[in-house]
Parts: sequence; C-alpha cells; structure tokens
Amino acid sequence: MSSDASAAKLDLRRYGIWSAQDGRPRVLHVMLRVRDFEAAMRFYTEGFGMKPLGEPFDVEGQRMSAVCLGFDDGETGGCCLELVYYWDAEGPYTHGTGFGHISMGVPDIDELLGKLGKMGAKVTLPPRALVSGGPRVAYLEDLDGYAVELIETPGT
Amino acid sequence: MSSDASAAKLDLRRYGIWSAQDGRPRVLHVMLRVRDFEAAMRFYTEGFGMKPLGEPFDVEGQRMSAVCLGFDDGETGGCCLELVYYWDAEGPYTHGTGFGHISMGVPDIDELLGKLGKMGAKVTLPPRALVSGGPRVAYLEDLDGYAVELIETPGT
Repeated sequence: MSSDASAAKLDLRRYGIWSAQDGRPRVLHVMLRVRDFEAAMRFYTEGFGMKPLGEPFDVEGQRMSAVCLGFDDGETGGCCLELVYYWDAEGPYTHGTGFGHISMGVPDIDELLGKLGKMGAKVTLPPRALVSGGPRVAYLEDLDGYAVELIETPGT
Repeated sequence: MSSDASAAKLDLRRYGIWSAQDGRPRVLHVMLRVRDFEAAMRFYTEGFGMKPLGEPFDVEGQRMSAVCLGFDDGETGGCCLELVYYWDAEGPYTHGTGFGHISMGVPDIDELLGKLGKMGAKVTLPPRALVSGGPRVAYLEDLDGYAVELIETPGT
C-alpha cells in the first residue's frame, strides 16, 4: 500500500462498503451465512461471474471468515453479497418463512442455469415468462438453500 | 401511457427489473415478506427515504400484493427491496439461522436511527466503529424482525 488513504479505501471495499464518500443512501450488500465457504465462493464467482472485492478475511473474535462479492468493482453502484462462514457452525442453516429471495438480472438464463446446475444448484422453477410480454424468470436454490431468482435481461 | 415501449418499461420497473436492456448481470432486488404492508412501506420510504418504483400491485393468483422500493429511480444501478404481503398470512414471519442482514449505506446514522426508532425499529447494536478507522456501524431489526445493518457513509 502506498498510502494510508488507499489502505483505507481497500479496507472499505473489502467490507462491502463502496463509494463510501459520496453521501448517497443505498443498499450496500446482503449478508448470507454459508456452510462451505470455498464452494459458495465458487458458486457465485465461477457460476454467476461475481468478483471478490478483496481477499477473504478472518474475524478471529467472532470465529468467522467473510468475503464480499460484486458484479463490478464495487464502485459503480451494484449491491454486493457478503458470504460469511462461521468456523464452529454445524449442520445446514435454516431459512424461516420471512426472507424471500435475491433477484439477479442475467443476460442468458439458459447458459447460466446449465452452469449452476452442474455446480449443485437446484432449479425450483424452470425459465418462463411470469408476466405477459415480460422477461423469462427462473428460480433456484443455491448450495445453502437460499432462493435466487434469475431474470433474463439481455442486452439490446 | 403514450406507447407500448414506455408501458413495458414502466411494468419492468414496477417489478424491480431496472436497466433491463443493458445486458450486465447484477443484483436487482431482495424480496422480503412483510406482515403489515402499509407500515413496512412507510418504514422504508418515510424512514429510509426509499421510493416506490411504481404503484403497489396485486397478484390475485397468489393472493399477494407487492411493491418495489429503491433509493433512486431504479435505472442507476441500485438494488431494490421488494416487499410482499400475502393476504392470508397469519402470525409473524420466522427468520431461520441462515440469512444475515441487508446493509444500507446512510449519510447520517444518528438522524436515521432517531427516525426509525420512533417508527418501531429495535436497535440491536448502537452506532460504533467496528474496525479501527472505519465508519460507524449500527444494527436494527425492522418491523418484521429482519436485521438491517447501517453503515455511515457521509459525503466528503
């Protein structure tokens, strides 16, 4: 690191805090607890194409590791995923009845579903238009059972 | 509506699908089920300052109403919240052990907490810097018990 300023910037990005100085309120990230840290990272990076905003980091006091993933460099406004792995967690996480899903806009739903299926995603709704004239939508469960909605948003 | 094209655009925004034609993969929205639709809308609009991306809409077949809220017009990249109210749901929603929180970057954490506290938010961690030299962070539970992290990101 060449200066304290750039060190601070890197740290903030690593914690999923992008554009920290612009003063706009915004959704920064969504935190999900995962049981297999490496597999979850692969699912969202190699599968979805998200990028780590910095190296995964440990928080010793909480006996956890975390990484923030974004579709861009974390400076242009996109919401990130913060994946958190608790070292002592046992058994699968439960999902309750409240939280619904994370919705992802993706350019090619069939290509992505093919890739994610091989990585262990469970397709719970195959692609179809849910609204007349609307984009194709699919639902899947990721490796920890979180519901993810895919909405096809191809380029013009 | 003056044309089919603008009608389609409005519909997509109403469903939390912004910039549908730019072909970039991205996080579009996070869906949360809520027990008091009007109160939840007020909490995130009057409290957080989010804006409905369109009128709330009903899906008769699923006996639900929904609205998408964003911090901007839904075209500049921000993740939205989709609040969903199921007409026949009874009792509070449960939250399981997996889903962590939604993190919001806000310019003034004390002002916002004062406002949200009066609206029924439960502060679970008062504002403090969690990382040396980092921004102040607070946690609250919203009206349905979802954990929301506030990170102070003041303008320069």
